[in-house]
Amino acid sequence: MMTQLQIGLLVYPDVTQLDVTAPLQVFSMLPNTTVHLLWKTLEPIKDMGGFLISPTTTFDICPQLDVICVPGGGMGQVDMMRDIQVLEFLQTHAQTIKYVTSVCTGSLILAAAGLLQGYKAACHWAFRENLALFDVEVSTERVVIDRTRITGGGVTAGIDFGLVVTAQLCGENTAKFIQLLLEYNPAPPFNAGSPEVAGEELVAMVQKSGSELIAASLEASKQIAQHI
Amino acid sequence: MMTQLQIGLLVYPDVTQLDVTAPLQVFSMLPNTTVHLLWKTLEPIKDMGGFLISPTTTFDICPQLDVICVPGGGMGQVDMMRDIQVLEFLQTHAQTIKYVTSVCTGSLILAAAGLLQGYKAACHWAFRENLALFDVEVSTERVVIDRTRITGGGVTAGIDFGLVVTAQLCGENTAKFIQLLLEYNPAPPFNAGSPEVAGEELVAMVQKSGSELIAASLEASKQIAQHI
Repeated sequence: MMTQLQIGLLVYPDVTQLDVTAPLQVFSMLPNTTVHLLWKTLEPIKDMGGFLISPTTTFDICPQLDVICVPGGGMGQVDMMRDIQVLEFLQTHAQTIKYVTSVCTGSLILAAAGLLQGYKAACHWAFRENLALFDVEVSTERVVIDRTRITGGGVTAGIDFGLVVTAQLCGENTAKFIQLLLEYNPAPPFNAGSPEVAGEELVAMVQKSGSELIAASLEASKQIAQHI
Repeated sequence: MMTQLQIGLLVYPDVTQLDVTAPLQVFSMLPNTTVHLLWKTLEPIKDMGGFLISPTTTFDICPQLDVICVPGGGMGQVDMMRDIQVLEFLQTHAQTIKYVTSVCTGSLILAAAGLLQGYKAACHWAFRENLALFDVEVSTERVVIDRTRITGGGVTAGIDFGLVVTAQLCGENTAKFIQLLLEYNPAPPFNAGSPEVAGEELVAMVQKSGSELIAASLEASKQIAQHI
């Protein structure tokens, strides 16, 4: 009998929809795998856009996991960086898990849980300075594998991340099979997907639109990093 | 006062999660826009992976839309091709809408509603022959704009599609802003995202894994195309 892989994706109020659903789509196609959407309760929660996500498994009954993935979000991500129940849940599972992982600013929640110190990791580009406060070697790569940590860049990196994790767990052929099934042959209509190519004006616009969140995250990062 | 844009994404039992959530993530970031997840009732429905999606707006109370988007799915997509209530809903809104759109095999549902005949359109690569039965000029492009129809390729094309629709509705600068915010700077870990590059063996594996669905869709396409 094949061992069933157990993959958990944390969800929380104000999470970014695609941070969750991009890897969810990839993981839900893995053979012999159960994917959990993990939260404190099973009540549907509102994502950053106001749409509902229904958790499937509570922290209390979560089985031993092979992979845990923490997505980013809006202001809710800052709450998660200070949420003792969430941090302890991550710390407990990290002790027995194959891979501790994140997409986007989820790496800041992992760092706040003390799970990324001394590791190389990725993050949404607008939050790289915040992550660096946690003794993390911040990378600009799309997906970073450093020992048992696998972390992706901002939002849409969740697809690349999902395929990289798939290759680690099930081999390259399974990852390629899923890539073809999902027709992942990207063709961005514009060349504006990273701060290096988007130009100063667009970068400033995005930073301004997210300034409240970036500042709140920076403040939380400074406070928490002192005590780890 | 700015006019509020109204964008509707059809959801249905057995829909493919990312076909919905990739464009949803893009559209939920548009200025002055309301995004609806449309279905017959507000009861949560199960996607192809068994995860819940909560509709936000029923057909009955759906406002006049600027864009409607039909995603693909598992066997549920074949049911939608024959669902009179769904087809009539699409036909009614198509009369007054700016753009009738789809991601993945959603184009087969549009075609079954008689809304793609004589147009050029995209589809998931494994279903191109099916779409061609409907007097559609099937394209291998990632996203196709033909007059008031905008259609995307398989699953992950929903991101490219979302940005193309954004540029049409709100201009290139808004699309680039969202691309940067979502850090859409894709880096597929393998070169296996289209049948042209994946090689015969992988193509055959995916076709085999989806053979039941592809056959059921072909059968429905043959039957329905005769009567349009």
